[in-house]
Amino acid sequence: METALKNTIAFIRPADQAAMEAARARQASLAKPPRSLGQLEEIGIRLAGVTGKVHNQLKKRRIVVLCADNGVCAEGVSATPQSVTLAQTINLTRGMTGASALAHHFGDEIVVVDVGVMSDVPCAAVVNKKVAYGTKNLRHEPAMTRQQALQAMMAGIEQACIAKAEGVDVLGVGEMGIGNTTTSSAVLAALTGASVEAVTGRGGGLLDSAFAVKKQVIREALDKHQPDPNDPIDVLAKVGGFDLCAMCGVFLGAAAERIPVVIDGFISVVAALCAARLCPHVKDFLFPSHASFEVGYSIAVKELGLQPFLLLDMRLGEGSGCPLAFLTMEAACAVMNEMATFAEAAINDDYLEEIRKGDQFTVKEAEK
Amino acid sequence: METALKNTIAFIRPADQAAMEAARARQASLAKPPRSLGQLEEIGIRLAGVTGKVHNQLKKRRIVVLCADNGVCAEGVSATPQSVTLAQTINLTRGMTGASALAHHFGDEIVVVDVGVMSDVPCAAVVNKKVAYGTKNLRHEPAMTRQQALQAMMAGIEQACIAKAEGVDVLGVGEMGIGNTTTSSAVLAALTGASVEAVTGRGGGLLDSAFAVKKQVIREALDKHQPDPNDPIDVLAKVGGFDLCAMCGVFLGAAAERIPVVIDGFISVVAALCAARLCPHVKDFLFPSHASFEVGYSIAVKELGLQPFLLLDMRLGEGSGCPLAFLTMEAACAVMNEMATFAEAAINDDYLEEIRKGDQFTVKEAEK
Repeated sequence: METALKNTIAFIRPADQAAMEAARARQASLAKPPRSLGQLEEIGIRLAGVTGKVHNQLKKRRIVVLCADNGVCAEGVSATPQSVTLAQTINLTRGMTGASALAHHFGDEIVVVDVGVMSDVPCAAVVNKKVAYGTKNLRHEPAMTRQQALQAMMAGIEQACIAKAEGVDVLGVGEMGIGNTTTSSAVLAALTGASVEAVTGRGGGLLDSAFAVKKQVIREALDKHQPDPNDPIDVLAKVGGFDLCAMCGVFLGAAAERIPVVIDGFISVVAALCAARLCPHVKDFLFPSHASFEVGYSIAVKELGLQPFLLLDMRLGEGSGCPLAFLTMEAACAVMNEMATFAEAAINDDYLEEIRKGDQFTVKEAEK
Repeated sequence: METALKNTIAFIRPADQAAMEAARARQASLAKPPRSLGQLEEIGIRLAGVTGKVHNQLKKRRIVVLCADNGVCAEGVSATPQSVTLAQTINLTRGMTGASALAHHFGDEIVVVDVGVMSDVPCAAVVNKKVAYGTKNLRHEPAMTRQQALQAMMAGIEQACIAKAEGVDVLGVGEMGIGNTTTSSAVLAALTGASVEAVTGRGGGLLDSAFAVKKQVIREALDKHQPDPNDPIDVLAKVGGFDLCAMCGVFLGAAAERIPVVIDGFISVVAALCAARLCPHVKDFLFPSHASFEVGYSIAVKELGLQPFLLLDMRLGEGSGCPLAFLTMEAACAVMNEMATFAEAAINDDYLEEIRKGDQFTVKEAEK
């Protein structure tokens, strides 16, 4: 399995510099002060680097939501009962949760994958790639074996391959797994050397005493298992979760398939950081969305050299930041594809004559 | 005319507190950790305050773009030739500029209003409400008379009335007017007492020498005309522009007609601040969009007590921030209208039975 992963990574090439140069030239030719559309210009240029084309469209948009349970919940590190993972895994397929209501509203597909929910999932719409019935409790033993981590990662990579085969233009990566801010904080601390204090937040809304326990559990797990910061798979296996592994796989797979891929919130950005540590070229394919309210987010996104463009104080997860990110990226495409160049926008006599004919107004003509 | 304005202002009532309470209760009942959708929850609650209804839809979205020239351009305060105002005023009606390409792409209407372009506008799609052929040069004399300021404001108010009559669900306010970062900085300094340094940026991209001139011109104008900070109409007349006056009118009119209204960038937020100074209840109807790159923006938006939710380093104007703001507000409506409550999301035996039947899957069912 490790060989299969290495093959995927070997397949990843950096952004297409020539296409980015052409896209930059196109932006400079558009009728606006230089760089006055800021990130909408940058996103368009980066998309060209991903696809190799200056003009892109993001018509088929898909959020892949990886669902799994975490053994560490036994320590009381979450304000939400663990059974909610199962309930929301199913609800995600029915447009009832935050992310899926937004996805449904804006016409985005959602693919929900069980990579380790702790019970069987009685719902045919959920893709069954279960590695195990939840992870072990990382306070006492490694969350999973290295082999299990690789299996979950391959499940994520597979989703990127399927997306490519089905013509998906842009992917987003979300999760559902009670307890996964604990695993994400542990992975982030292990990868970056940041203190547990700096990377650990209250997740779904922990009170003071449980918050102290959460940080203590993470400290103990890191002490006990000594994950190797130079081996992201070791880190994921010892203090991560099946969801994190599979999300990391989607990011790797998207880069290999050259599909732009959107990071949601805290858990998603930690998985993206794991992927970028396995292969730095992955960064060229990553697009941020919102600045998560969860405290570790900014540390991870800075490590990736990205700047989130939505400031909504969100901390729901599930991929809930992806639909608005897709639309922002679509706006960037509209700028690249539909704005006039300076040459086209110039008013000369012919142009005014054409206007006077009045035969080409497509936008609302108010007050006749 | 002053009486007509006073009548509009007298008509403005604050947000509907009962509707906001009901919306807050609805948010608390939705299946998510409390406040985990952050601003998407707040926006939904504020929309309820505007319309008096918990459930809102923003189907008919319109950007009103106010266009005018500024006499102060004679001082070389802009990097862009003044003729661009006319060219882009026309191009705005044809989906060719930044804002109109975005609006067209996302299905938003654009209404372009000439309130003071310095030549005739040979384009039937532009609404003609010209007050004069550009303002006077505020370095030497007041930009306009008080009567002209009122006339431009009434043109804006009229657009809000028309929008209401035509069933517009949400308005956005943009502008086109070379030189209007100079007038906006002058108005903001006059209203807030902030230093010219603090509120003045490089607009469309000024070089050092012209930037120094711009600040000097604003200082001289404020010294010479001594606009009364307690009389926003006096401030607008002496150091503002027709576009700013008319935009202020749209904000006032939207509040009077109880239509939610989106602030675009720097010029837009200064006009909104003028409106809020004339009637503090206006704040209840204002929705921010992006954090403009232009330096004075944050001072003005803070005065209004608002927090922008798009971080895109944009500084184009025209209303270019409105389309993505509309979509963010639509996302807030989707959360309020389409997410399941805790009761609906709970998994019990009946629910699982229903799921097993598999007859209600509306979201993509991957990998059969």
